[in-house]
Amino acid sequence: MPHFSPAALTELEALLGARLVTTAADRALHGRNETHFPPLPPDAVAYPETTAEVAALMAICARHGVPVQGWGAGTSLEGHALALNGGVTVDFARMAQVLEVRGEDMVARIQPGITREALNTELRATGLFFPVDPGANASLGGMASTRASGTTAVRYGTMRDNVLALEVVLADGRVIRTGTAARKSSAGYDLTALFVGAEGTLGLITELTLRLHGQPEAVSAAVCAFPAMGPAVQAVIATIQSGIPMARIEFVDAATVAAFNARDNAGMPEQPHLLVEFHGSPAAVAEQAERFGEIVAEAGGEGFRWASRPEERAALWRMRHNAYYACLALRPGATAWVTDVCVPISRLAEAVEETRADIAASIIPGPILGHVGDGNFHAILLVEPGNEAEIAAAKGLSARMADRALRLGGTVTGEHGIGMGKLDYMAREHGAGWDVMGQIKRALDPAGLLNPGKTVRGN
Amino acid sequence: MPHFSPAALTELEALLGARLVTTAADRALHGRNETHFPPLPPDAVAYPETTAEVAALMAICARHGVPVQGWGAGTSLEGHALALNGGVTVDFARMAQVLEVRGEDMVARIQPGITREALNTELRATGLFFPVDPGANASLGGMASTRASGTTAVRYGTMRDNVLALEVVLADGRVIRTGTAARKSSAGYDLTALFVGAEGTLGLITELTLRLHGQPEAVSAAVCAFPAMGPAVQAVIATIQSGIPMARIEFVDAATVAAFNARDNAGMPEQPHLLVEFHGSPAAVAEQAERFGEIVAEAGGEGFRWASRPEERAALWRMRHNAYYACLALRPGATAWVTDVCVPISRLAEAVEETRADIAASIIPGPILGHVGDGNFHAILLVEPGNEAEIAAAKGLSARMADRALRLGGTVTGEHGIGMGKLDYMAREHGAGWDVMGQIKRALDPAGLLNPGKTVRGN
Repeated sequence: MPHFSPAALTELEALLGARLVTTAADRALHGRNETHFPPLPPDAVAYPETTAEVAALMAICARHGVPVQGWGAGTSLEGHALALNGGVTVDFARMAQVLEVRGEDMVARIQPGITREALNTELRATGLFFPVDPGANASLGGMASTRASGTTAVRYGTMRDNVLALEVVLADGRVIRTGTAARKSSAGYDLTALFVGAEGTLGLITELTLRLHGQPEAVSAAVCAFPAMGPAVQAVIATIQSGIPMARIEFVDAATVAAFNARDNAGMPEQPHLLVEFHGSPAAVAEQAERFGEIVAEAGGEGFRWASRPEERAALWRMRHNAYYACLALRPGATAWVTDVCVPISRLAEAVEETRADIAASIIPGPILGHVGDGNFHAILLVEPGNEAEIAAAKGLSARMADRALRLGGTVTGEHGIGMGKLDYMAREHGAGWDVMGQIKRALDPAGLLNPGKTVRGN
Repeated sequence: MPHFSPAALTELEALLGARLVTTAADRALHGRNETHFPPLPPDAVAYPETTAEVAALMAICARHGVPVQGWGAGTSLEGHALALNGGVTVDFARMAQVLEVRGEDMVARIQPGITREALNTELRATGLFFPVDPGANASLGGMASTRASGTTAVRYGTMRDNVLALEVVLADGRVIRTGTAARKSSAGYDLTALFVGAEGTLGLITELTLRLHGQPEAVSAAVCAFPAMGPAVQAVIATIQSGIPMARIEFVDAATVAAFNARDNAGMPEQPHLLVEFHGSPAAVAEQAERFGEIVAEAGGEGFRWASRPEERAALWRMRHNAYYACLALRPGATAWVTDVCVPISRLAEAVEETRADIAASIIPGPILGHVGDGNFHAILLVEPGNEAEIAAAKGLSARMADRALRLGGTVTGEHGIGMGKLDYMAREHGAGWDVMGQIKRALDPAGLLNPGKTVRGN
C-alpha cells in the first residue's frame, strides 16, 4: 500500500472510528464496476456523515499523499470510481438526505449520496420532481460528477442544466460553495459547471442545490415503428424543429426490439421504433400528440400505439430502462461493453447506420438504442467473458464508434463520461483543450490525489 | 505607456498594418462606457480579421507583456472592456460574420463581433432564431463573455444555456476549440461554460456555436396591473409552478410606468405591472394565456390588455427595451447607475420592496424593473453628473442592493457581470471560491495580461 501509510490510517481511524473500513469484503465491493473493467479496490472505505468530516479526511489524505475517490451508487460505466492507485474511497451512503425543499423556488438542497429514485419519492407530495433520468438508480452526486442525462434531457436538460449550486471539498480540504438558489448569475467563473462533469478529479461534492420542475398535469406516451432508421430520425428532426416540446423521444433498433420481445413479451414488430412521451396540460398533450402523429405518418411511421394509462406508461419505460438487461439476456452468460457517443442530430442516421453495419460485420451482437432527440446513442456489445477475440472485436467496434462520432462533428461520450475507459480519445476530441483541462487540474490538485487516472492526463 | 513598448508596436503593425490604430480618437472611443466609469483608453486598437491574426497578436503581446482586452459593441454596464492598464483593445468589428447555419441541427457558427439583431436578421428566412435578448444590441462575443440573458431567459435560458461550443485564443496564443455541435457531452471539464462569463480574462473568443430555436408559430403578449409588488410576484410564482411556459415575464414598478407614460404616452395606470409573452402553436398560446389570466385574476391583477398583433407587440417590447432611456428622460441631464441583482424568486418581493423603500428614503430617483421569472431585477439610479452627494447616494443604494441580494441567498449580478464595478463583492459572494477563480486565472494567464483588473483578484 504505497499510498496509504500507517500514520494516515491512524489519523483517519481517529476521525471516523468504525466508519473507516479496511475489510477485504468492503474494499472488494468498492473495487467493482458495472461493466468490463478489472477490479481495482481501494485500501480503505470511508463513510463520512458530514461535510466537516469529508474536509478533515481530505486534509489528512493531502498531508499523507493518499489518493481519494468518491463513491455513490457504483453504477457508472467507464470505471469512474475505481481506485487505480488505491487510497481511500469515500462512500456517500451516510450523506443521503434531502436537506431542504423550497417549493416557491422550485429547488431542493440535497446530500450527494441520495439516489434519484429516493429523491423523487421524497418529492412526490410537493407537486415537483427532478427530471434527469439516466436509467440506473444512480446517486445525485455521481450523476453530477459524470454530467449524466438520459431519456428526459431533450425536454429538461442534463445535470449541467439542473444543478444550480454545489458545496465542494477541494484537494487541500478547503470547502467552497459555488452558485446560489437564484436561477442565474453573472458573478464570475461558472465553478458549478466546472465541477459538474469533473468526475471527482477537482473536488468531492458534498451538497447539491438542484432545480426542480412541476409534475406534469397530463402525460401521454406512445410507440411507433419505422421501416428504417433514416425516416425515424427525420421524424425526430421535424418534431424538434416544429417546437413540439417532447418530454422523451427514444430510438431502439430491431435487435433491441427483439430483446424486448424475448424478455418482456412486448409483441412489437422487429423494426426500428420510436418511444415518445408528452408532458403538459391535457389540451397541450393532446395537441402535441396529434401534431407528432402527423409528422410520423408523413415520415412513413406506422403502428402507433398509445399508452395513456399510468400502468401502460410505466411498463413502457420500465422496458426501455431495462433494455440493458434485456439485451444481456439475448446472450446468456455474456458481459456487456456499453458504449456511448453523441453527434449533431443531422449526422445521427449516418452514425447509427454505419455503426450497425460495423457490428453486423463483426463476430459479436450489439443492439443499438439511444436518446435520439439529443443525437446520443448507445451500443450494447455482448461479449463472452474471457474470449479474447470477442473482447478485441468489442474494443475495435467501440473505438470506431468514437472515431466516427469525432469525424461527424460529435463527442466520444454524450452522457457516460470519460473515466478510465475513454481517456485515449481526449486528446483527439479536445486537442490543446485537453492540456487546458490538465492545467486546471494541476492548479487545483497539484499532487494529483483526487480520482487519479481519470479524465485528465498525467494525473 | 509602460506596457506597450516600441518593439511591440512594430511587431503589431507588421501583423495588422492599418488595422492597428493608435489615434487619440479611436483610443478614446474604446475607452468609454455606457455608464458611470471614467474613460480608460487603450494604447492601441486592433481590428483583426481572422483567428490566426488574433492568435498572432496575442503571442506578440504575451512576449512583450502587453495587456489585451476584447471589444464587441461597447454596451456592457460594469466597465468590462475598459483598458485599466492600457495595452491593446481587440475590436471584433471585422469578425462579424455568420459562418454557417445548420438548420437540421438548429445551430449557427458565428464570429464574435456580430450583434444579436444582425444575427436574427440573417436567420429570418430559416425559421429559426437566437432568443437571448439583453435589450442592448450587443455583440454575441460580448454576450457570451458576460453570460448575458434578458427578457427571454425564463423560457430559453441565458448565454450559459445557448452557447454549445467556442473557439478561444488563450493568453499564450494557443487556439482551442471547446464543445461541438452535438447537443450534449460528458467528455471532460466543461470548458465552454468556463469561458462563458469569464469576461475575457481567460481568453479571447474568436468563434461561437450557438443553439437556435424554432420561430414560434404564434405569439401573444399582454400587460396587466397589480395593486402592489407582492401579488405580482405571487402570480409569477404560481404561473411558473403550474408549468405554463412563459416566453417573457417582466416586472416594471410604478416609477417605470410613469416614465413610459411620459415618453411613450403609454396611458398605463401608475402601478406595478407585469408584461408577458407566450410562444407556441395557436392553440397552445391561447390555452397558456387563458390559464395565466386565471392566475392573475386570483392574485388581484386587473386591466389585462392583450397585444396579439405584431405591431402592438413590437411597440410593447420596444417600450420595455427603451425603459433605460425612458427612465433617463425622467430627469434630463442625469447619468444612470444601472444595478442588477438576482435572488431566489421566493425572496423577490422582499428584495424589491426593501430596495424601493431604500430608494424612496434617498435623495435620488430610481425606477425598478426586472426579469421577474428569474428573480432578477434592476434599479436605474438617476444621478446629476458631478454631484458628489448624489453619486455617494447611488453607490450606497447599489451596495445595499448587493448586500441584500447576498443576505437573501442570491447573487450580486444576475446578468450584467462583475467587470470593474462589482469586484468588491466577489469575496463576500464566493468566499474561498473566489480564490479558486484566481487559481484558474493564474494557471491559464500567469502574467495577468487578459483584461486586467476585471472579475478576479490580483490580476
